[in-house]
Parts: sequence; structure tokens; C-alpha cells
Amino acid sequence: MAPKSPLPNLFFFLLLIFSAFSAAIASGKLRSRRPCRRLVFYFHDILYNGENAANATAAIVGAPAWGNTTVLTGMNHFGDVVVFDDPITVDNDLHGTPVGRAQGFYIYDKKEIFTAWLGFSFVFNSTEHRGSLNFAGADPLMNKTRDVSVIGGTGDFFMARGIATLSTDSFEGEVYFRLRADIKLYECW
Amino acid sequence: MAPKSPLPNLFFFLLLIFSAFSAAIASGKLRSRRPCRRLVFYFHDILYNGENAANATAAIVGAPAWGNTTVLTGMNHFGDVVVFDDPITVDNDLHGTPVGRAQGFYIYDKKEIFTAWLGFSFVFNSTEHRGSLNFAGADPLMNKTRDVSVIGGTGDFFMARGIATLSTDSFEGEVYFRLRADIKLYECW
Amino acid sequence: MAPKSPLPNLFFFLLLIFSAFSAAIASGKLRSRRPCRRLVFYFHDILYNGENAANATAAIVGAPAWGNTTVLTGMNHFGDVVVFDDPITVDNDLHGTPVGRAQGFYIYDKKEIFTAWLGFSFVFNSTEHRGSLNFAGADPLMNKTRDVSVIGGTGDFFMARGIATLSTDSFEGEVYFRLRADIKLYECW
Repeated sequence: MAPKSPLPNLFFFLLLIFSAFSAAIASGKLRSRRPCRRLVFYFHDILYNGENAANATAAIVGAPAWGNTTVLTGMNHFGDVVVFDDPITVDNDLHGTPVGRAQGFYIYDKKEIFTAWLGFSFVFNSTEHRGSLNFAGADPLMNKTRDVSVIGGTGDFFMARGIATLSTDSFEGEVYFRLRADIKLYECW
Repeated sequence: MAPKSPLPNLFFFLLLIFSAFSAAIASGKLRSRRPCRRLVFYFHDILYNGENAANATAAIVGAPAWGNTTVLTGMNHFGDVVVFDDPITVDNDLHGTPVGRAQGFYIYDKKEIFTAWLGFSFVFNSTEHRGSLNFAGADPLMNKTRDVSVIGGTGDFFMARGIATLSTDSFEGEVYFRLRADIKLYECW
Repeated sequence: MAPKSPLPNLFFFLLLIFSAFSAAIASGKLRSRRPCRRLVFYFHDILYNGENAANATAAIVGAPAWGNTTVLTGMNHFGDVVVFDDPITVDNDLHGTPVGRAQGFYIYDKKEIFTAWLGFSFVFNSTEHRGSLNFAGADPLMNKTRDVSVIGGTGDFFMARGIATLSTDSFEGEVYFRLRADIKLYECW
């Protein structure tokens, strides 16, 4: 009888709580916005301009009808496609020991202001990190900070997902820029 | 003794259920196929054709050896790379107030029929939405509907994942097309 | 009184375990590194070289200032952008019945060695599989194996995430190569 045995009630109560939590976890609504891992790196882009073949780390490989692949196009470089293989460092020194390479492309994609679309990877090769992080997203580069998605990872970063907050740490005309990447992972396996 | 104390049994039974559910949740098998968020938008692509520089929102920036960057190539545009910065609207009116921009690229990638590969973002800038959604996937554009992946998001769409069902809502020759994007998020943080 | 009723203790104990597990699941730390699905395919890339238009499945569509779109550039093809629509087969026979197409692009992105960045989809169209898998990541193609991310999926592969281990199964000069893709999904919906 009920008064003698509270067990069934407890059982169903626990099951209820459990089901509610399960549903919330499954749909992701319970997930933490506190990063499970955080890393900060810098990467350095030296664009080929017709004269710096030896130390350039990036090159224009696509351009609109009114542009070319040697000089960035007018109209905020709209349509220029750039491939890069940039050194990654742990501080903001271009000549620091690289811990890996930032490899991929960016496309300037707006006529009115500077903004780009990025698809790239951090490929690590240091004693501290092995593996890669893959990124994609819009880079409205005139903003002080802008967020792109960490869409996956391999090796030490197996199945990672998160957000990378990019900021322009320095630039020199149209040849050199340095980006700071503040990487916050929210899925760690 | 067992008849007097059903507690240990209950305990292990609950633990068993719990473990099974945990494993199922962890591997994703229990996840809901009901969207946790759904949004519908339209975006409008006006391709530069050598004469419409003022109002074009897209331009050819790569082409195969047998093509050029002013006119879409034969063989179903195979190899043409297009960069775009298209207005996003909440209904199908090109002249409606934009709530953001669809920015990125598409590549026509088949000789026999029209089909493309898409990498782009919705960058929102309205009172209702701030942040971005990032997309990637194949677009067999002769199909009435086709699904691409929502691979991440930022701001209001922090860490989002899902599916965007695209359909061609309208097109005019090779200069204008309008896509409807029915975005279903299945991971909401 | 406590000695008579162990129920509250049990209750809180269970709740404690449950909360700890929930947090671990939510942050992904409990997730299994055992694939929930595994598939192996081959895909076949025949690059247009100016003479094989009929059976080429890929074409150079972007190149740096010192290259062109007919012949792969020197310096390890740095800057060459290639669009492809390659048949997918279940074994390593180019003439086997295709189960779908691998569609997307790769960009050679390093001057010193061969390495590329990949963005592509497997678009399945067979009795066994319908839908698509989307991939992105760095491909240091001189390595025996290299991992790229499965960033999403549609249809039979709804919301999939995982890792694809690529290996070069065969190649003939600069015209043909065959990749083996060992796809391990860790998120299955």
C-alpha cells in the first residue's frame, strides 16, 4: 500500500527528472557556454605582390574580370581569392618559432567595405600539439573582433567544435597582416 | 535480506537504465529530429555580366582554361567560381529591407548538369538577429529542394548545427536568382 | 528517522551521480571514440591537362600570377585551385559502378611540399545510400594517411560528424589519382 511503500513514487520521480534532463542534453539546451579548452595563437600573412616571391606566404589565385592576380583589386578587393600557408606562433613575433601552419584561403566578398570569407586549418606540428583544427566563417575584418566557427578537429583536437575570435593584431599596407586567434572549444572529446 | 529490502535492486535497475540512456545520448542516437529552431529567409544573387557593375552582388573570379571571368562557361558552367555578397530578406521581395547578407562562394562542379558546391555565411544585422550562420555542402540546383549543412554559428546562433533546405524561388536567365533557405537547427546552445 | 529510512540518502546519491554524468555528457567529455558508423570508399580524380576534355573529372580554375589554368604550377602547385566531380566507388576500380560523386575543390597551399586544403561532399545516389556527407580540412598529401573533418551530412547521413582518413591509393603522374576514404562517424542521429 502507498503509505507503506514510497518506492514506486521515488522511482517515477527520478525517471521524470532523468527524462527531462536527457531531452535537454540531447537537444543541446543544457550545454555549457564555458569553454572546455582555450588556446591563443597568432598567424602571419605576407601577400605576394610581384616582388616578394621568396618570403611571401600567400598569393592571389582568383580575381574578378576587372582585376588580376598580382595586385589586390579596387572596390575593397571584392572578388580576390587568396591562398595562404602562414606560420603560427604563440606570441606576436613573426620570427618566433612556428608551432604549425595556418593553411587555406580567404575571399574578399564585398564591394563597399573590407570583408572576407575564410576556410582554413591550423595544422600543428610541435611538441605540445599534434593534429589540426578546421575553421570556416565570415570575417568582417574592419571589426575589432569577429567570430568564426571551429567546425572540426583531428589528432589532439579530435572532433572539436567551438568559436575562434579573430582580431587584427597588426598590418603593414597590403603586404603583411597578423591575426590573433582566441580559440574557445565547447566540445571536447 | 532480499525480500525485506528492495532498495539495492532498485538502485541497480536505475543505474542500468541510466547507463544505457547515457551511452545513447553520448553517441547521439537519442537526439531529436525535431528542430529546436527554425528560420526561413530569401537571398538574391545578381551576377556581374560585364554591364551591371553598379547593382551586381556576385562576380565570377575563377574559370577553367576554356572559360573567362566575364561570362559563365559552357558545359553547365563547370569550373566557374563565383563570389557573392547577397542581400537576405524575410520575404521574396528583392527590394525588401535586408536583415543581413549572404556572403561566400559557389563553384559549378559538373559538366553534365548544373550543380554547385557552396561555402557561405548568413551575416545578420537586424534588430531581431545578430551573429552568423555558416553553411557548406553540395547544391544539385536542378532539384526542387536540396539540403546543405549548417556547420556552425556565432552570436545569437552560438554553436548552432542543422540543415538548410534550399530551393530556387525564382531566376531570370543567368543574371538573377533568388534562393529560399528553410533553416532547421537541431543543436541549439 | 535516518536509520529507518535510507531513501533520502539514496535519492541524493543518485542525483549526484546523475548530475556529474550529465555535465560530462553535455561538455562532450564522456563521448565515445568508437565510431557509430564506418564506411570505406574510393574516389577517382582525372585532371584536365589540355587534351583530355572528354574524360577529365577535374579542372584547374584558379592559379597564382606565375601559373595558368592548363598546367599545374611549379613550386608544388602552390596556389592552384582545382574543381572536381569525381566518381565514388566501393572498391579501387576506376571502372566500377559509381555509388555517387565526390564534388568540391582542393587548393594546393604550400610552396615547399605538396599539401592541399579540401572542401567537398560525397553525394550518394545508390540503392544503399541516399544523401550527402560534407568534408573540410587540410590534406598534407605526402603523408601516408591524413585526417579531415566530416562537418555535416544530409539524408541517410543526417547531422553526421566524424573523421575521414584519406590515403593515396594510386596515382599516375599529374593526371590521375585515387584516394581511399575511411569514414568514421562519431555522431549518428
